Amino acid sequence: MQENNWDIVITGGTLITMSAGMEIIEDSIIGIKDGIIVAAGKNTDRGCSILNTKETIDASGCIVMPGLVNTHTHIPMVCFRGMADDLPLMEWLSKHIWPAEMNFVNKEMVYDGAILAMAEMILSGTTTFCDGYFFEDTITEAVSTVGMRAVVSQGFADVFMPDKTRAGKMMAAAKRFVKRWQPHAPMITPAYFCHSPYTCSPDTLVRVKDAARENGILYLMHLLENKDETDTILNLYGKKPVQFLFDLGVLDEQTVAVHCNWLTKEDMAVFADLGVKVSHNPESSMKLASGVAPVPEMLKKGIIVGIGTDGCASNNDMDMFREMNTAALIHKVNSLNPTVMNAETVCKMATIGGAKSLGLDKLTGSIEKGKKADIILVDMNQPHLTPLYNCYSQLVYAARGADVKTSIINGKIVMKDRQLRTIDLQTAMNKVHAVASGIIKQNMC
Amino acid sequence: MQENNWDIVITGGTLITMSAGMEIIEDSIIGIKDGIIVAAGKNTDRGCSILNTKETIDASGCIVMPGLVNTHTHIPMVCFRGMADDLPLMEWLSKHIWPAEMNFVNKEMVYDGAILAMAEMILSGTTTFCDGYFFEDTITEAVSTVGMRAVVSQGFADVFMPDKTRAGKMMAAAKRFVKRWQPHAPMITPAYFCHSPYTCSPDTLVRVKDAARENGILYLMHLLENKDETDTILNLYGKKPVQFLFDLGVLDEQTVAVHCNWLTKEDMAVFADLGVKVSHNPESSMKLASGVAPVPEMLKKGIIVGIGTDGCASNNDMDMFREMNTAALIHKVNSLNPTVMNAETVCKMATIGGAKSLGLDKLTGSIEKGKKADIILVDMNQPHLTPLYNCYSQLVYAARGADVKTSIINGKIVMKDRQLRTIDLQTAMNKVHAVASGIIKQNMC
Repeated sequence: MQENNWDIVITGGTLITMSAGMEIIEDSIIGIKDGIIVAAGKNTDRGCSILNTKETIDASGCIVMPGLVNTHTHIPMVCFRGMADDLPLMEWLSKHIWPAEMNFVNKEMVYDGAILAMAEMILSGTTTFCDGYFFEDTITEAVSTVGMRAVVSQGFADVFMPDKTRAGKMMAAAKRFVKRWQPHAPMITPAYFCHSPYTCSPDTLVRVKDAARENGILYLMHLLENKDETDTILNLYGKKPVQFLFDLGVLDEQTVAVHCNWLTKEDMAVFADLGVKVSHNPESSMKLASGVAPVPEMLKKGIIVGIGTDGCASNNDMDMFREMNTAALIHKVNSLNPTVMNAETVCKMATIGGAKSLGLDKLTGSIEKGKKADIILVDMNQPHLTPLYNCYSQLVYAARGADVKTSIINGKIVMKDRQLRTIDLQTAMNKVHAVASGIIKQNMC
Repeated sequence: MQENNWDIVITGGTLITMSAGMEIIEDSIIGIKDGIIVAAGKNTDRGCSILNTKETIDASGCIVMPGLVNTHTHIPMVCFRGMADDLPLMEWLSKHIWPAEMNFVNKEMVYDGAILAMAEMILSGTTTFCDGYFFEDTITEAVSTVGMRAVVSQGFADVFMPDKTRAGKMMAAAKRFVKRWQPHAPMITPAYFCHSPYTCSPDTLVRVKDAARENGILYLMHLLENKDETDTILNLYGKKPVQFLFDLGVLDEQTVAVHCNWLTKEDMAVFADLGVKVSHNPESSMKLASGVAPVPEMLKKGIIVGIGTDGCASNNDMDMFREMNTAALIHKVNSLNPTVMNAETVCKMATIGGAKSLGLDKLTGSIEKGKKADIILVDMNQPHLTPLYNCYSQLVYAARGADVKTSIINGKIVMKDRQLRTIDLQTAMNKVHAVASGIIKQNMC
């Protein structure tokens, strides 16, 4: 017998590795030390495995898999969940979302919203997410406190701003933001987020990309969410959006385009050629009636696609299991082909695909020796998950966020048996209820 | 103070009545006696309310609403959940589902599957369902044991059967089935289910409808699930499906057509005129890539539409909350209109609309004095349901089956605090695992 001095050992579960070989290992053992996966395989020597381990997790009856990667969020928007639904887009934005943002978004609100959103994400199996919103510095403080892995992005939008010095101020703030948070890697990864080609000037789009390249960080953008964006950019610049961005030189393998519901075949060829990544947010785009992204075609072309929930005002939850389910279903009916977006493909997109799209695949997205320990246990001993023929099918078509039992991020147990360890849940809920009370009093919902 | 002698009182919740006036009552009280709702309103006299009541349920922090009505199921198919997904339709049917049904469907399997399915349904808020499968007599015994409200239907399909006396035998068995179960109303409501216009001969379609009319029972049919059904019926009978059924005289207000993904405007006019009801199963039709039913148009024409999950081989769960979510989302993106199928409309379809479609709206589907007590409590004190601006939005866009805390059917508590009272859950899961083991051994999945 050999002493292993692991911090955590997870035994007895069915391990879904999501590694390149997609190994599935029954009766597995995973050892974690200093935040790193130091062993992952068949549990052949039970006696040895548990020697001198600080914490043992019994995963019998569970699937053990990489934590999910939510590639697009605006987490403080949980405060607006269900505030204004089923409305025409412009009425929703101009009469509800924008006024609420003008009046209620402040540092306290984004902090409280961020904490609640992370509670929801951890409780439904997400361990890594990519966020962009106002006061991202404050959001990142919350992320740091809770201990989730995150890409946090400082936003840019200048076209509609009367203050023409704004772009410069935003850039200075963004550089400070990156300087502050870059030392917190690999838990925190700062990035830049140009809101869209129609809300950022060409000059800003280019300057931000230059700065992103200088810092070696991601460059994110909402792109082609709605059908009319193509006409908008054509009218403004005489080119279609992807051509416009290509000509500006801002597209490369460190660019993540969010939504891409109206990406053409030509656009896909450009993306595939340059290595541009995509964040697919099916529920948000269905709820806002924006469109269905041609994801099966993107995957065929070799474009890396992750899944995201988007903000809670347009979803209205952050449950990546639901998002996986919807991603699998919508493309089948959209193409009238039941074989597209099979369960395994969707599981990949929600784990290693998401990690790749954010440039974090050396850290997370699969369970392999040497990677950071971002791991969830899904309790399969439940009626809606019985019987079990195929793990991927079950995860995509039947499982839900509430089935996640335990969650580990960077080797730290942040939830065990559905109890959060780094968030006081009732306090978090109470604080967001208080924000909502103010919104209700002002008749904004 | 007045003694009330109620069996159950539910206090302190937000009552969503789903009555004609759609009243929502904060801090409500509901009294139940002999299975009937005897009081439902504002809790103005707490002292009185709880006198001499056998069981008191504290609904603080909960939405109290009618139990959900699942208008289309094949409940024993839980045994095939995830057995064969993401395949072309004919390969799925001919290489997996049909062989499994040939080899494994027997009385024991349908009983065990039915029990597990009911566990799943109760745990996710369904109190009434409409089923059709093989050995429906055995299924109904299981339903009777568990205490759910159900329409149970004896099936007919004769076109592909070599035995030409089969139609007569089926009819005799169906009449025995109805005779056996009609006395169990209003918990059990027997019905007839002609599988489809292409699997039943015209003679059978008519004879079964005649028998249904004689017994005053529902007549159900899969209709226009796939695009090619129109051509099939055109080739066989020189008419489109709805015209064909109209000419046979089998369409009336006691007819429920399931799926209707390819219903035309002319078909809708016929349905509206005759009062034909529709069961909408969005997830199944998405997963099988069958199509999207024109439900917003149906509702505009005044057609009564309920929601169903379909069997677990094509969904793969029976969670009506997920089905509500999908129903709200798919039609928005399908029409590129975010205002269609709003949350309130979807809640109606899943409760009173479903009850109307099954002819059970005098019994269930809303919380009103005199109706049977089919009631669920949804625990809203959860991060993904925080904050709360609009109850319907929250139920449709953020809640999920696992949020249902307590369920009452016909005045009997079948689940309290997520513990089932009429099903031994672990035994139910073990039995279905045993069925699956046999299927796995025969390499059918």
